Amino acid sequence: MNDTVRLSLEEVHALALEALIANGFSGGQARAIADIVTAAERDLCGTHGLFRIPFYLNALNNPEVNPTAVPVVTELAPAVVHVDGGFGFAPLALEMGTPPLIEKAKTQGIAALCLNNVYHIAALWPEVERVAEQGLAAFAFTAALPYVAPAGGIKPLYGTNPMAFAWPRKDQPPMVFDQASSVSARGEIQVHLRDGKPIPQGWAIGPDGEATTDPEVALKGAQLPFGGYKGAAIALMVELLAGALVGDLFSFEAAEKDTGTGAPLGGEFLIAIDPGRCVRDGDRDRQLAHAEKLFQQILAQPGTRLPSERRYAARRRTPAEGVCIPRSLHHSLVAFTRES
Amino acid sequence: MNDTVRLSLEEVHALALEALIANGFSGGQARAIADIVTAAERDLCGTHGLFRIPFYLNALNNPEVNPTAVPVVTELAPAVVHVDGGFGFAPLALEMGTPPLIEKAKTQGIAALCLNNVYHIAALWPEVERVAEQGLAAFAFTAALPYVAPAGGIKPLYGTNPMAFAWPRKDQPPMVFDQASSVSARGEIQVHLRDGKPIPQGWAIGPDGEATTDPEVALKGAQLPFGGYKGAAIALMVELLAGALVGDLFSFEAAEKDTGTGAPLGGEFLIAIDPGRCVRDGDRDRQLAHAEKLFQQILAQPGTRLPSERRYAARRRTPAEGVCIPRSLHHSLVAFTRES
Repeated sequence: MNDTVRLSLEEVHALALEALIANGFSGGQARAIADIVTAAERDLCGTHGLFRIPFYLNALNNPEVNPTAVPVVTELAPAVVHVDGGFGFAPLALEMGTPPLIEKAKTQGIAALCLNNVYHIAALWPEVERVAEQGLAAFAFTAALPYVAPAGGIKPLYGTNPMAFAWPRKDQPPMVFDQASSVSARGEIQVHLRDGKPIPQGWAIGPDGEATTDPEVALKGAQLPFGGYKGAAIALMVELLAGALVGDLFSFEAAEKDTGTGAPLGGEFLIAIDPGRCVRDGDRDRQLAHAEKLFQQILAQPGTRLPSERRYAARRRTPAEGVCIPRSLHHSLVAFTRES
Repeated sequence: MNDTVRLSLEEVHALALEALIANGFSGGQARAIADIVTAAERDLCGTHGLFRIPFYLNALNNPEVNPTAVPVVTELAPAVVHVDGGFGFAPLALEMGTPPLIEKAKTQGIAALCLNNVYHIAALWPEVERVAEQGLAAFAFTAALPYVAPAGGIKPLYGTNPMAFAWPRKDQPPMVFDQASSVSARGEIQVHLRDGKPIPQGWAIGPDGEATTDPEVALKGAQLPFGGYKGAAIALMVELLAGALVGDLFSFEAAEKDTGTGAPLGGEFLIAIDPGRCVRDGDRDRQLAHAEKLFQQILAQPGTRLPSERRYAARRRTPAEGVCIPRSLHHSLVAFTRES
């Protein structure tokens, strides 16, 4: 098609890196972001791929954002690692906090990573996947900006608050899910608005608290949590973990600090668990083989798949095939590489 | 009303204890179960109150159940406690594992409790509430018997797999939720069957995979996860944590061992986190005060409440008022105290 451009994954990475560096990002911040963006393109998660680079650049309109921040890693307890992101972006802070998190999980059995003062534009699956690739189970939680109504309420309070979980597999990538506490991503509503299409029932309510299928009304109202009060409870849990627990902002507080760039400032909380330290014989291979029996039971039913399967299917193809991005996006990104 | 009997909480406890001891439970197992059952009655959670005693007694028809089991607590890693429940019931094993879990969370920052070889009949909120009463955040996960279809599938595979979370509050009981991964509890479908009423759309599918409102067809088919594939992902996560991670049974494996008593054998996994070890200044009071601001924001919206509020409202009344149980249940329980 004429309106897309095909890029190799190497070209994706180089384009992201150049656009960021040309606009004042340090090599470290830019490379960590380019890695995450390239991983998303590789897995055909377009909404977290190069599409996000303009968001990172736009975030610089907030004078509190530091594109050259050097995260500082410290130990808060034998099983707790802390990273102060220094008001840079999450990817570099996560990258620096992950090795000590993994080391602590292996020595202590379970460990936590508390992240502060980072701007969040990326998905959570890269960080839990990275931990699970080292044979550990992992959780991640982060808040956002207030978009979702609490159970029984009608005004936005919680972020779309994703929770991610990963389980390690032998000789293949981990089982990973990364899901918002809201029925839909915010971006999905924006895409419906752009395309002039109604949103499905159940995604959102208007400012009056009434159900709506009008994306414009929905964006002025509140998104709904998935599964009613149960999803709302998860959204609340995520606020507590990524906010009060790590000593950072709740979504409604991030909104008070937001200058309209749409890049929420806040914390993130990760847990890593070494399965081999959770059984008496320490036989992790047996535990992982056991988990495969469950996966087989799931996949034995027609119509099922594991949560991460679509991404991994894409990952097997894109290193050879490359990926397509909209020509207009490519054009903007190339222009960004010349702005310095 | 003539068809109920009013009991004080002390009478509830004594009745539970006597019925269990008269039927061969050890003092330790019986007292731990009576405590949990009394806590449920106190909070007006009738389905986990005295109503459950006949389930515990019925479980003894399975010769592998040990009503006098003495759980064994060991340390698997600096931050991991293990309890082998010895094929007794969960409450005593949890009670014995909780103090070392709390101690480890306070010294290490985060800690885990892995439970094996216990029969599960109780709710999860008592264990996370107990941990949070000591100022810690807590998670609990346990599997069950296969009742719930995986995403895209139609045959039951996952348990109703509850996940519980608690957050400590100053001078008041913790914020707690304890929710099944299925839309409804299994017991709710059974109650609809007993009462000859249809179940709501969305709770279950029949053996043919078609949506059903017939409770009898639903019980032969599969329950549905809450919120579609997102709830199914949580059910899958719970299987992995309470099964493969702690080296115990998946729900479908528990079914293979079940002799029809309906008390699933398996594992449980808990995480405890000390908020004070997750911030640099260690100021837990500030963290808890921060969380209260979020709770205030929730409660400022009409129609909202915190997940545990209904239980706590009941708890303020029942120590003085007592609780009502069906006369038929009371009659059975009194009869059980005479069977020895």
